[in-house]
Amino acid sequence: MSTLPPSESPVTVIGLGLMGQALAKAFLANGHPTTVWNRSAGKADELVGQGAVLAESVRAAVEAGPLVVVCVSDYDAVHGLLDPVGASLAGRTLVNLTTASSTQARETAQWAEKLGVAYLDGAILALPAAIGTSEATMLYAGSQAAFGEHEATLKALSEDVTVYLGEDHGLSALYDMAVLTIMWGVLNSFLHAAALLGTANVSAGAFAGMATTAINVTADYVTAYSEQIDAGEFPATDATVNVHLGGMRHLLEESEVLGVNIDLPKFFLQVANRAVVDGDAENSYAALIKQFRKRSA
Amino acid sequence: MSTLPPSESPVTVIGLGLMGQALAKAFLANGHPTTVWNRSAGKADELVGQGAVLAESVRAAVEAGPLVVVCVSDYDAVHGLLDPVGASLAGRTLVNLTTASSTQARETAQWAEKLGVAYLDGAILALPAAIGTSEATMLYAGSQAAFGEHEATLKALSEDVTVYLGEDHGLSALYDMAVLTIMWGVLNSFLHAAALLGTANVSAGAFAGMATTAINVTADYVTAYSEQIDAGEFPATDATVNVHLGGMRHLLEESEVLGVNIDLPKFFLQVANRAVVDGDAENSYAALIKQFRKRSA
Repeated sequence: MSTLPPSESPVTVIGLGLMGQALAKAFLANGHPTTVWNRSAGKADELVGQGAVLAESVRAAVEAGPLVVVCVSDYDAVHGLLDPVGASLAGRTLVNLTTASSTQARETAQWAEKLGVAYLDGAILALPAAIGTSEATMLYAGSQAAFGEHEATLKALSEDVTVYLGEDHGLSALYDMAVLTIMWGVLNSFLHAAALLGTANVSAGAFAGMATTAINVTADYVTAYSEQIDAGEFPATDATVNVHLGGMRHLLEESEVLGVNIDLPKFFLQVANRAVVDGDAENSYAALIKQFRKRSA
Repeated sequence: MSTLPPSESPVTVIGLGLMGQALAKAFLANGHPTTVWNRSAGKADELVGQGAVLAESVRAAVEAGPLVVVCVSDYDAVHGLLDPVGASLAGRTLVNLTTASSTQARETAQWAEKLGVAYLDGAILALPAAIGTSEATMLYAGSQAAFGEHEATLKALSEDVTVYLGEDHGLSALYDMAVLTIMWGVLNSFLHAAALLGTANVSAGAFAGMATTAINVTADYVTAYSEQIDAGEFPATDATVNVHLGGMRHLLEESEVLGVNIDLPKFFLQVANRAVVDGDAENSYAALIKQFRKRSA
């Protein structure tokens, strides 16, 4: 790793928290001359040992190459660091991997445009340890030209799943939230199910296989339901919302009688009941998208 | 199908709604001499055309063979039909595929025991059209001896996924509810995610692939989390509850700003916040099982 192949493009990483360190490590491991900067310089020690160059200032870090990756605590920190060096950023590409809302990402894109900075907003669907492996998913949104120019370098972070989402800089934040929503939804429903079975002394491990199958089987519905959602028509080729409601009432009763939490069944019922009020009783489950699109009462 | 191989065991199906008809059809297709009964006899016409024998009374239907399968609207209907013919049921096996709560299933098992009826309570995880195919999952709970005796016959309903859960007659109802909980949880979170992305004009179809991946990736967590749940220890080898909470707050804000429904993010936050109150802030997500086990406030 001490002799870097001159063919690899240099990259700068600003912010060396656990995630920033993992990013820099992956660039180094792929032979990219890597410049790093962090508010407390000590966090760079290990990376410098691996061949990174510690810049003496944010400005020096930015000026070290054509591609600047920033990953700090929040967007206030991003602007606190980069606003003073706007002139140095001009003409380079900034990839912002700091967690943000789509609104923040879009605002930052306007800021970058005024400065003449090519801007990509990114989201990391991985823990630090997975960066650089096939377990990591990296999402990018914004300048397609900048993505094309630096795609090969960015693939050091995830060779297999480096996804460009589109020109709208808010997309990476939105996809990030969408994927996390699904994760929490799946985990919560599994935990409720495990609690229910626990009342009959069924261990979570004994249920895990069937739970995994149920999750994967439901994933198959997503494609069919997506077509209905995009067409705006919801024929019940399988069960109707009314049929689902019957099952949900059973779930609520079971949960109540067995003394487990009823908040999740109640939530299911509320959404489905609202769909019935809106005339979707005989439509497919996908018609519930209308309820999720509406502001809460 | 007109010449039934004499080696196959006879079976009786009581209740010929859409599901009951599908059950009888699958037994017939597998060569079982099949006796059927329904309150309105007309529903048997097609089955009789396929070789079924229409019994003239519930009693005659029950007495036609060693295995009686009942699938009607609810347990009141089950008892309304079978209580008067208890003496005829004695010594036979009753498989009850009527949807029920675990409490109802356990009560019916006591009723059957008094009568000397071998009892299996079952749950069907399939639409009628899938009965007899590898798409159907059939769950059975109760007398292991009765299951062993009739397993070959019951496999006409699902060759691939015929599962015996255990002696506790409530298990089929509980597993049924557990699997449905997971299905609703997955679908609702997908719909919320699709609504969120819809605000940026991302179609559900464009997201479906990543959604499916997210669902399947989360399914992989279930096994690891099951081990923690069964051990009662929740070390955060990945993200802590506190880290998840940060993401959930982002989701709530995004949903609110973008004008989509916030009930699901609020539910996520409530559960996670309760876990923090109970001292699980630095534990893994699996620690939330404690919240699902608790009665709602």
